[in-house]
Amino acid sequence: MDLWVTEYQTPSLGFSCKITETLRNEQTRFQHLAVVETLQFGKMLLLDGMVMTTDKDEFVYHEMITQIALNSHPNPEKVLIIGGGDGGALREVVNHPAVKKGTLVEIDDRVITASRDFFPALSCAFDHAKAEVIVEDGIEFVKNQTAEFDIILVDSTEPVGPAVELFSAPFYKSAAAALKDDGMLVVQSESPFFNQDVIQMAFKGVQQAFPITKLYLASVPTYPSGLWSFTVGSKQYDPEKIMTRGSSCKYYNDEVHQAAFKLPDFVADIIGEGK
Amino acid sequence: MDLWVTEYQTPSLGFSCKITETLRNEQTRFQHLAVVETLQFGKMLLLDGMVMTTDKDEFVYHEMITQIALNSHPNPEKVLIIGGGDGGALREVVNHPAVKKGTLVEIDDRVITASRDFFPALSCAFDHAKAEVIVEDGIEFVKNQTAEFDIILVDSTEPVGPAVELFSAPFYKSAAAALKDDGMLVVQSESPFFNQDVIQMAFKGVQQAFPITKLYLASVPTYPSGLWSFTVGSKQYDPEKIMTRGSSCKYYNDEVHQAAFKLPDFVADIIGEGK
Repeated sequence: MDLWVTEYQTPSLGFSCKITETLRNEQTRFQHLAVVETLQFGKMLLLDGMVMTTDKDEFVYHEMITQIALNSHPNPEKVLIIGGGDGGALREVVNHPAVKKGTLVEIDDRVITASRDFFPALSCAFDHAKAEVIVEDGIEFVKNQTAEFDIILVDSTEPVGPAVELFSAPFYKSAAAALKDDGMLVVQSESPFFNQDVIQMAFKGVQQAFPITKLYLASVPTYPSGLWSFTVGSKQYDPEKIMTRGSSCKYYNDEVHQAAFKLPDFVADIIGEGK
Repeated sequence: MDLWVTEYQTPSLGFSCKITETLRNEQTRFQHLAVVETLQFGKMLLLDGMVMTTDKDEFVYHEMITQIALNSHPNPEKVLIIGGGDGGALREVVNHPAVKKGTLVEIDDRVITASRDFFPALSCAFDHAKAEVIVEDGIEFVKNQTAEFDIILVDSTEPVGPAVELFSAPFYKSAAAALKDDGMLVVQSESPFFNQDVIQMAFKGVQQAFPITKLYLASVPTYPSGLWSFTVGSKQYDPEKIMTRGSSCKYYNDEVHQAAFKLPDFVADIIGEGK
């Protein structure tokens, strides 16, 4: 018998992995959550049927949503992660030598529990001395902060359900207010091949709240199209310029940092920066 | 009724596209060939069940297998393509202003026919004044050439069936002999996430025949993992250094040229160049 899990990455595109077992399959207060054991990628976390992370390729996404800002900010002491309940981004944050405190605000505690139960390489971060884990709506949390953080990372699902507001201009403005006057914001902003509208929404929204806005790319095999974008807003520092140095990584390095900002023409066109 | 085509990119990973019709479905002398109309990517060509090219994302692969060598060779007048019967690489070659002649050697004339019938944006190149199309075994063709070409591009399927020998050290040596003394070879060398063995085979083989060997990357959504590698062997010129300038592209540009060589650590490790 063959068991498969399929993510419909678009209505016309299926991404299927052979699985050996279903480890968790539940409706939480906020979303459907599943953990399956795949042959190709090891354990896989899905929310509302969308692949969030897997054992085998989590390193790309988690390094690339964190290390660009961590290493272009000269002194990233206080870092806030909105979403990211699997703990992967938090692991990267607390392992950076310059960071003094990494705060994770996840709306759905069942994601945290699933990570603790099945993803030890991600959930290890929850118990780190520098880590603070808060179960709360990230949008409300950010509204109540002023000039508090050096970096805010938005590690969300795509803009459906609880994550819609995380892609809105008002949220980016309240994130800017929650950052110190030299702070940086990074948001995952989907695939340049499939989600041009999301990239435009994120990029234009961030641009309204930050004087410096740039897009960068990374290759995540389990995300639609395999090419993923991140939008970074910065009040002062150029996110392309490396200022600090973290621990060694599997995907990220100094050259990858700079190469990630070199956009193919069709990607530059999406954000109105084509030649 | 839903119709889908599925490529099993690995035994445990399926890539499925909703289709509206099957335009061609035949066993040629060499392989199974299909052309389907997909909703996500437009027309799609499959050989032995593997996606070769699609209307929507062909530009990435065809630009990136050609433009790196075309623009780092100072005078790429004569270019040979082995395989590539869809014509996409040939189109890029003959459109480059420095090229005087582009020769395509494809073993299976049914691929050429399918391209003429269904992929006008690719097959347009066959009738270009600079183009020469030869239906022949590329391995035998290369053996009979001496110091003839400036650039050879190996645009093959993966190393199964007729393409196995195209990934062998003896073939790379005969390709080196078919190149002028400042010639360059580019071979598609599969995914760093799934085909580390192929990359090592190609890279080590090319290294034995060329003093300069480098690996570069591009994001092709319809290829396994979405991240694809190319191995370039050069007798004299640094493939990272831009020497000429072709026509404008959708993926390739000067910055992408250089960024493509900046390898994540896990990729550098595959070819023994990790830090």
